[in-house]
Parts: sequence; structure tokens; C-alpha cells
Amino acid sequence: MELTKYITEMAKAAKDACYALNMASTAQKNQLLSFIASGLSAERNKILAANETDISAARKQGIDTALLDRLQLNESRIAAMIDGVHQVAALADPVGEMDEFRVLPNGITLGKMRVPLGVIGMIYESRPNVTLDAAILCLKTGNSCVLRGGSEAINTNKAIASVITSSLKQAGLPENAVNLLTDTDRAGVDILVGLSEYIDVIIPRGGKGLVQRVNEKARIPVIKHLDGICHVYIDASAEAEMAINIAVNAKTSRYGTCNTMETLLVHVSRAAELLPVLQQKYAEKGVELRGCKLTQKILHNDIIPASEIDWSTEYLAPILSIKVVNDVSEAISHINYYGSHHTDSIITNDLSHAQLFLRMVDSSSVMVNASTRFADGYEYGLGAEIGISTDKVHVRGPVGLYGLTSQKWIVMGQGQVRL
Amino acid sequence: MELTKYITEMAKAAKDACYALNMASTAQKNQLLSFIASGLSAERNKILAANETDISAARKQGIDTALLDRLQLNESRIAAMIDGVHQVAALADPVGEMDEFRVLPNGITLGKMRVPLGVIGMIYESRPNVTLDAAILCLKTGNSCVLRGGSEAINTNKAIASVITSSLKQAGLPENAVNLLTDTDRAGVDILVGLSEYIDVIIPRGGKGLVQRVNEKARIPVIKHLDGICHVYIDASAEAEMAINIAVNAKTSRYGTCNTMETLLVHVSRAAELLPVLQQKYAEKGVELRGCKLTQKILHNDIIPASEIDWSTEYLAPILSIKVVNDVSEAISHINYYGSHHTDSIITNDLSHAQLFLRMVDSSSVMVNASTRFADGYEYGLGAEIGISTDKVHVRGPVGLYGLTSQKWIVMGQGQVRL
Repeated sequence: MELTKYITEMAKAAKDACYALNMASTAQKNQLLSFIASGLSAERNKILAANETDISAARKQGIDTALLDRLQLNESRIAAMIDGVHQVAALADPVGEMDEFRVLPNGITLGKMRVPLGVIGMIYESRPNVTLDAAILCLKTGNSCVLRGGSEAINTNKAIASVITSSLKQAGLPENAVNLLTDTDRAGVDILVGLSEYIDVIIPRGGKGLVQRVNEKARIPVIKHLDGICHVYIDASAEAEMAINIAVNAKTSRYGTCNTMETLLVHVSRAAELLPVLQQKYAEKGVELRGCKLTQKILHNDIIPASEIDWSTEYLAPILSIKVVNDVSEAISHINYYGSHHTDSIITNDLSHAQLFLRMVDSSSVMVNASTRFADGYEYGLGAEIGISTDKVHVRGPVGLYGLTSQKWIVMGQGQVRL
Repeated sequence: MELTKYITEMAKAAKDACYALNMASTAQKNQLLSFIASGLSAERNKILAANETDISAARKQGIDTALLDRLQLNESRIAAMIDGVHQVAALADPVGEMDEFRVLPNGITLGKMRVPLGVIGMIYESRPNVTLDAAILCLKTGNSCVLRGGSEAINTNKAIASVITSSLKQAGLPENAVNLLTDTDRAGVDILVGLSEYIDVIIPRGGKGLVQRVNEKARIPVIKHLDGICHVYIDASAEAEMAINIAVNAKTSRYGTCNTMETLLVHVSRAAELLPVLQQKYAEKGVELRGCKLTQKILHNDIIPASEIDWSTEYLAPILSIKVVNDVSEAISHINYYGSHHTDSIITNDLSHAQLFLRMVDSSSVMVNASTRFADGYEYGLGAEIGISTDKVHVRGPVGLYGLTSQKWIVMGQGQVRL
């Protein structure tokens, strides 16, 4: 009950603050961001000391190296965080944008105005820089937020939030525009995602377990990212060198990212020519291959068979499943059935196949002759990214500032009444 | 278990059908709609007979007159339904629209393509024409659907669905593009809204009880409409005649609609002048008034006091609560706190107040010098409306064809890989 009260009051404070934020001008919001950048610079030793406390505690608990790396801050990471604040300040402010104006037959002028969503509830795991990223993206778009980071980063998160709170004060904006929940009880997440009266959208950012748990419990719209089972399909007409370059890049440039290829599809007419070359390239990088029957045959049974489960697995590791398909339609069906609707690419020189693939593949990013690794807010020029949405409603793919806004209808009459 | 299996198979069939629908050209979809219009005309006697069966059963169960009226079809209602099909056929098809193209520094062309959401789950109550409306709006936007109407309309719904199924066959499109659930167990709703694997969006259309139940249980994004607690605020500078006309129209043109005004706010400087005139006008229409202390005083205590609960009540009846406020900011705060974020209007000649109201009122439609009754898909020129959304994400206010679509990113490269 104490926990419910604590979280509810925090959410209510965020709601109260959101109207003042909506009214803040772009200049005021950018000034706030510059105060935050200066504050981070001035307080970097305090933040690093707090981070050291978290790191020591995590080490004592025997937390694994990958997680320790995500938790760790250092001078260069803080410099990158500060740089990020300046970048967001430099982006155009979507709030207040008006468009789609038209005059109705009765003389009413109808249009749309872009406005903040209101209060964003952000739930994330160990990386403390998310505290800053989420806060500055919400502030730039006039949203207040309630942040709930991982308990292992609690001291670092508090130190960062303290800089933000001081900056809000300095800018004359409500301190409750950004609220960090400091409870460490997992039940807190369930409480937060039920507060539909105060919170407009929940954004979970973390592993699949966290996202599924949030989605299961939420009584509020969720902008979420589940898995990234991305495909590259090499079509019959693909240019060989391009196909090989992209297939290698999409798998090997990074293994742990959501836009990394997990399954390669190859047109039957090109399999005998391209698979042996690719096998060698992947072997050089240490990528384990798992193939369909025909792939195995072409590669002289040098690789293990791909089982049904492989086609729907996000390896996040140097493993790749390969399937030979009969035509572009089979490739599209495979992608829509087994994929995760994240990002898929066709390598082709056939215009009608490119058009069919673009239209029919049901994914947030659909590509022609490019590496799936480009599916990213920075690469797309959004300037900043709060996540990648695998949902279809509201926002799909990389989520930048616009994804944190909504449009309301505005109606300007001269006294019209409805007959 | 039988019920779960039945509903799951229906949803899976809808999913299987949605890819063929996505590929259907606009001409093909419009031809389908013309087959449906002809079919309704040819089968009108069968539909009316089925409706008579439903009406008799409802009468035996002692169902109230308002519900009987919603359930009833007749020649003219069928004619209106047929007319609606032609209207939707005449609307532009949003599917396949491409925009926001830009060329990235690396030479990649990036843009967005508008696509169907996939499978829409529609849950509604007694009005059988919703079966048709939902089906044709989904078909026009290339979505397949699973429809679950009220059990009291089951025979009428089956007769309408049968026309749609035949038309799909005639048009060479999959019959499972439109699926009517014919179970009458309320547990069916809970099963349907959990099928996130097959259904992309749930749209409940009906009373607040139904919508809340769906929202509570859904594991899928919901496009919903809750209550319409709409306000008109008469500002200090309002033109008197305009203010009176709009205040009367917004309340009295229809009582049961969601865009009807439920609370009137009046600037303190205009209360003594306008309230007595309005009192008389409302008395002529039989509207009961409930006022704040000052309103009561000005109206010589002729009206009952408004209690705290009145400010957040959707009367849907000839009752109006009235509050005198000190300025536009108080009006905005009242609306954001007590309202339902549906539609609110300011009557003013003060430009800065109009701008403030438009920016700060957190509602799906915000109006200046117009009656709240205009918040409607037809009035806004959307041509058709599947509902009005009081949500902020995805779509807000009247939902037409665009609200049933999503945008995916499309990326066209010439072999780019990510460094």
C-alpha cells in the first residue's frame, strides 16, 4: 500500500506538471537542455562516484560482464551523454506544429495541431544513460515522465536525476516534469503500468522478459519493441557482390542488435553459386550456420540442420539460419510467418519483385538492396531515438520526437451551429 | 475450450486472408463494395425477415424501447446502409500511399508507405448496421476483420454477413476476410481480445461498460471511445448572440450523442447578462440546470446546485451543469481536470485566448466559436467513421479510413552496408 501510494503520487505530480511543460516555448525547453548539459558536466565526478557504488554492489552480487558493461559509466560515456543533450536541443520541436488545414463547406476551418502525449512512463533496465535519454526526449516534446530504471543502477540514476531536477528549477519549469522512482520492488512496475488516470503511454525498454511483463500487465497504451528476427532475401536477379556484401554486413557488423539478420533466404537459382562463398565469409568471422536440407546439401553437409524453431529465433549471437526458397512469394510468406515484423531486406534487380516485397512484407522497415542494420533512428535522420516500435499502431519502427506526440483536431468557426 | 478453439480458428483464418486483401487493388476493392451493395439490395427481404426474428425474440425478453429501436431494420435503414457502401467506395484508398521521401547522406532513399493494420477485431452491441459499416471500412482499407456483435442481433448479423461472404467470393477475394463470430457467450469477448498473435487492433463500439471491459482484458492495442463530457466556455469577449446560439445548439440539438455539451462555463463578467437569457432558452427546451453557487445566485436560486460529481458526469440527457469562472485559465483547468478529453469549445473574440485554449485544452477536438456537435467524421469530411477515439495514441477524435492504416518505413538502397 505504501508502494502504491508512493508511485501514484509520483504519477499524479507528473500529470500536474505536464500542462506547464506543454506551454513551454521551444526556446525555454532548449535552455533547459543546455542547463542539463552544463549540470552533467559540473557534476560528472558525483555521477561517476555514484556509478562506482553501483558497480561495486553489482560485482559483489556476481553480476555478469555484459551487464556490468551496460551499467558502467566513464568520462567518455558522460561526454557522449552530454553530446546527446546538445543534439536533442538542436532538433526541431514538433509541438505546436499545425497542418492538414482545410475549409469545410459550412465555413469552418479544420486542421490538426501536434501536441505532447502528456505523461510518459518509462521502464528500463541496467543502462543509466537511458535515464538521461528518456528525460531529454520527453522534455523536448513537452511531456513529463515517470522513470523506473533497474535497481542495480539506482545510485547513478539518482545522481543523473538530481542534475535534471536542478536544471528544471533553474529554467523555471516544474521539478516534477521528470520523476525518478527509487523503489526497488518489482511490484512497482505492475503498479505503474496500471495508472491510466495519470500516465498516457508506457514505454518499456529492455529485454524481452521485461517487455512481455509490461505488456501483460499494462492498462495503458504501450509503445514496445519485442524481438528483431530480421531477414535478407537474395532474389534470382541479385547482383552477386552486392548480395554477399549485404548478407555479411547484416549478420556480422554487430551480433547483439535488434536489426541484425537472423535468417538468410536465397533464391534456388543462386544457392549453388552464392552459398559456398558466403560459407567461407561467415567462417572467417566465426559465424555458425544452420541450414535447410538444400543448403546442407550444397554445403556438403558441413553445417548443422536448421530446425523449425531456428526460423523464429532471435540468436543475438554469431549464428545464422539459411533457407533456400523457390521464389519471392515464398520468401515473403516465410518472413511474414516466422519473422518479428522488424526489418527485412530484398537484394534484387527486378523492379516488380522489389515493389511486391515493399508492399507485402509486414514489417516496420522494409528494404531493397540495403543492409537491415540501417534500421535505426540515427541512420534515418530522426536525430534521437527512444526505441524501435514493433507495434503497428501509433508509431512503427524507430521512434524519435514525433512518436512522443499526438495530433488533436482544431476547429475554428465564426459561430456555426449544427443543424 | 470449444469456444477458445472456435474463436482462435476464426482469428487465424482472418490473419491468413489479410495478405491477399493487402494486395487487392483499389479497383478490386471497389468492385467488391459494389457487389455488397447489390447483394444487400437483392437480399433485403431475407435480411428484414432475419431482423424480424431478432426483434420478436427481443420483445419476448422485454428489452427496452431504445434498444429495440437500435436493433430494428426497415426498408429505409437498409437503403441508408446501401448508400453508405457506395459512399465508402467513392472515398480515396489510403493503402499504398507513399510520402515523406528523403535521400539520406549515404544515398539511401527513405520514405513511408501506408499499409493496412492487418486484422481488426470489432466488438459491438445491438445495432446490426455496425456489421456492415465495420466490414466495408475494413475491406476498403485492406484489413480483414473478426466481428462480434450483440447476441440480440445475431440473425440479422448472419444475414448481412452472408451477403458479404458471397460478395467476397464473387470478387475473387478470400471469404475469411470478414468473419462473424456467432457464439453468444460473453466469455467469447475475453478470448477474442487476448489473441495478439492474430489480431492487430481491437475496436469496441458500444456503452461504457463494454468498452471498459474490453480495455481491461485486452492484450492487443485498443482504439476506444469512452465518455464525452464536452464543454462550451463563454469568454469575456464573446459575441452575445453567437454565445447563446452555440450554447443552446451544443446542448439541445441532440441529447444522447457523445459530442453534446454537458457543462457550460461562463466568464464572471458575462454571467449576469447571459445566464438569465440562457435559462429561458433551456427552459423552453425542457433542460434541467444545475449550477455553481454564483450561477444559482444570478438565477435567483431557481435551479438546483451542481455537486462535485456533476462536473464529471456525462448526462446524455436534458440536464446541464453551469459554472462561472474567473478567466480563461480557470476554464482550461476545469476542462482538463473534469472533462473526458473529447471535444471542447471556447466562444471568444480574443485572439490570445483562442490560441491559449487551442493549445492547452487536452481534448481530441478543440474548437473556437463553433458548436461541439460538429465533432464527427462526416462533418469533418472523413466520409465515413468507424468511431471516435478518446485515446491519444495512434488516432484521436473521429476515426475514418486512415485510422485503420499504419505507416511502415521503406528503404531503397543501391547496395549500402553499415560501417
